[in-house]
Amino acid sequence: MTVPTIASLPTPAAVVDLDVMEANLARMAGYTARHGLRLRPHIKTHKSPRLAAEQLRLGAVGLTVATLREAVVMGSVGGELLLAYPPVGDWRLDALMRLARDTAVSVALDSAEALAGLGAAAARAGVRITVLVEFDAGMRRCGVSTPAGAVALARRIAAHPGLEFGGLLFYPGHIRDAVPEQTGALRVLAADVARYIEALRAADLAPAVVSGGSTPTAYASHEVPGVTEIRPGTYIFNDRTTALMGACAWEDCAFTVLATVISTAVPGAAVIDAGSKALFREEVRGRGTGFGALLDRPAIPVAGLSEEHGILDLSGSDWRPRIGERVRVVPNHVCVAVNLHREIAGVRGDAIVGRFPVAARHWDPGPTR
Amino acid sequence: MTVPTIASLPTPAAVVDLDVMEANLARMAGYTARHGLRLRPHIKTHKSPRLAAEQLRLGAVGLTVATLREAVVMGSVGGELLLAYPPVGDWRLDALMRLARDTAVSVALDSAEALAGLGAAAARAGVRITVLVEFDAGMRRCGVSTPAGAVALARRIAAHPGLEFGGLLFYPGHIRDAVPEQTGALRVLAADVARYIEALRAADLAPAVVSGGSTPTAYASHEVPGVTEIRPGTYIFNDRTTALMGACAWEDCAFTVLATVISTAVPGAAVIDAGSKALFREEVRGRGTGFGALLDRPAIPVAGLSEEHGILDLSGSDWRPRIGERVRVVPNHVCVAVNLHREIAGVRGDAIVGRFPVAARHWDPGPTR
Repeated sequence: MTVPTIASLPTPAAVVDLDVMEANLARMAGYTARHGLRLRPHIKTHKSPRLAAEQLRLGAVGLTVATLREAVVMGSVGGELLLAYPPVGDWRLDALMRLARDTAVSVALDSAEALAGLGAAAARAGVRITVLVEFDAGMRRCGVSTPAGAVALARRIAAHPGLEFGGLLFYPGHIRDAVPEQTGALRVLAADVARYIEALRAADLAPAVVSGGSTPTAYASHEVPGVTEIRPGTYIFNDRTTALMGACAWEDCAFTVLATVISTAVPGAAVIDAGSKALFREEVRGRGTGFGALLDRPAIPVAGLSEEHGILDLSGSDWRPRIGERVRVVPNHVCVAVNLHREIAGVRGDAIVGRFPVAARHWDPGPTR
Repeated sequence: MTVPTIASLPTPAAVVDLDVMEANLARMAGYTARHGLRLRPHIKTHKSPRLAAEQLRLGAVGLTVATLREAVVMGSVGGELLLAYPPVGDWRLDALMRLARDTAVSVALDSAEALAGLGAAAARAGVRITVLVEFDAGMRRCGVSTPAGAVALARRIAAHPGLEFGGLLFYPGHIRDAVPEQTGALRVLAADVARYIEALRAADLAPAVVSGGSTPTAYASHEVPGVTEIRPGTYIFNDRTTALMGACAWEDCAFTVLATVISTAVPGAAVIDAGSKALFREEVRGRGTGFGALLDRPAIPVAGLSEEHGILDLSGSDWRPRIGERVRVVPNHVCVAVNLHREIAGVRGDAIVGRFPVAARHWDPGPTR
């Protein structure tokens, strides 16, 4: 019997090296275990129930999701779910209440409006939901902006019969430096977290959970006193941005887009069939150019993108690919690249040993829809 | 009986205003008919068989596709297909030959290698394929770079028993100005096209087809002598970039992403649930900032994006949305935004009157798979 290899895949194709992925999962699980932190990975990166199950098997205590589609799909995997997204809108609340009947769900929010909607829905459904208060740690996206605001919201949660105050949540996505202690950003973050915890303690609302984390700062989480759990997503696969910022080695990049060279007509370049609809278009912001790079030749970037064309800049290399040759591209941002694919081929070496549907994309039909 | 409205849609949701879309289709069909040009729209923009059928009904002579997935899905719609993409790779050739058994297909390519593969596949399959030679009109992506190169490739095609030389194809995607005559780019293009046509005529290989076009320059196509057909894609929906470059009016934007305001915690901003996984991340390049703008308030841009968060910059407006309020966002680049959605809701006013599956995405299961 012949084992299928990646040579059999139509391109562009999403491929994950399972050996590298498992090492990434084990490394993060080991770190969190050593420091007494709970690991609740964000599944937005892979959106695949089977990979979420691997994360739970390798040490995660539960899963984090952002969309209700993700929540519903991941509800079938097991483990406790955290919806790290304000549950605003009737359809979100309806889906959440259906899910909460047989899955332990906690929810983060940042407004009295979101809280009122959730509280009313929980009361109607007769379920009890644990609620975390999100505060803005500097990302300026979501989150209350003062400890007093966090206390006020926590009080309302604690007073609501259908809700339970669970603690605090923040997202330090603005800290993009892998050695944040050098920039002082981590010290600022630690002081912020301490202020919020202290204010809640003073109000007799000591937070049982303080949920933080994100791949770039994940391995510095123990330097932020009070944090009880982290929610990294990217670390399962890593990507070019994570490598360029020094938060992983290039060899830790588990996900690539397999592509075929389809034209070499324009001198100095080669065109592959992975464009912005296979790699996404996201710059690396100050640490390099291009929209991805070749796994085996990281000095060759994808310098340009059309929807179905990626332009390899060959100026930094003597390598000249032939038409029909295949390459593997590490995307800049893996979470948005994966989201463009329906399925990920899991490989060991070149052998395909598994298929992982990216089941929790927006609107995709899925097992539980 | 109640007609469902967009208020019933979970967000983020892809929505197309059918009145605006039909006017866009009729306008381009009218232009091409007046100038004796054939309209072969690129379906990459919508990837929906039902919308392709609308294009054929409203004056298109056939369809243009880039991927084999698109070709297979659109093969069921009817009309003559043009694969405007080098058919490199055995799986592409296999799918193309299966399709060519009962669908008229022509193919554009730019290399002897692609030609050899296609010729061998056609001979094995016993089908006859019309081949266009792609030349580089300045985009520096694909295409032979000299008239002599085009003649050499055309000779090989004409000499091959399974292939027929059909003419020339170019993609003027580098001309992003809606009034290109002011920049001289259109004059340069016209001179280029004339050189290629003349070289082929001199070699007794006069091109029956000269295929050009792209939405920004579509309405100037009659100013490029020799062009016989155009392949615009974006024009069916238009988008913020097309409007900002002056190639359509804001009112001609038919596609929006419906989104819900989920947080107003950070002053001066409002957060919606359409992020880079619903809008895509593509800048407008020199004509504005942000990644989209509100349909009803075009001065309010989506200034920042995370995967599931869009940050509305409210600094230019007195409008302050409440949490739960819904908005419609015109994305910067509609082709890549549509590709993030599984289905488009077709509306007249607020009433949902149709559903259009985005059936030809990479790897998606579809009616013909």
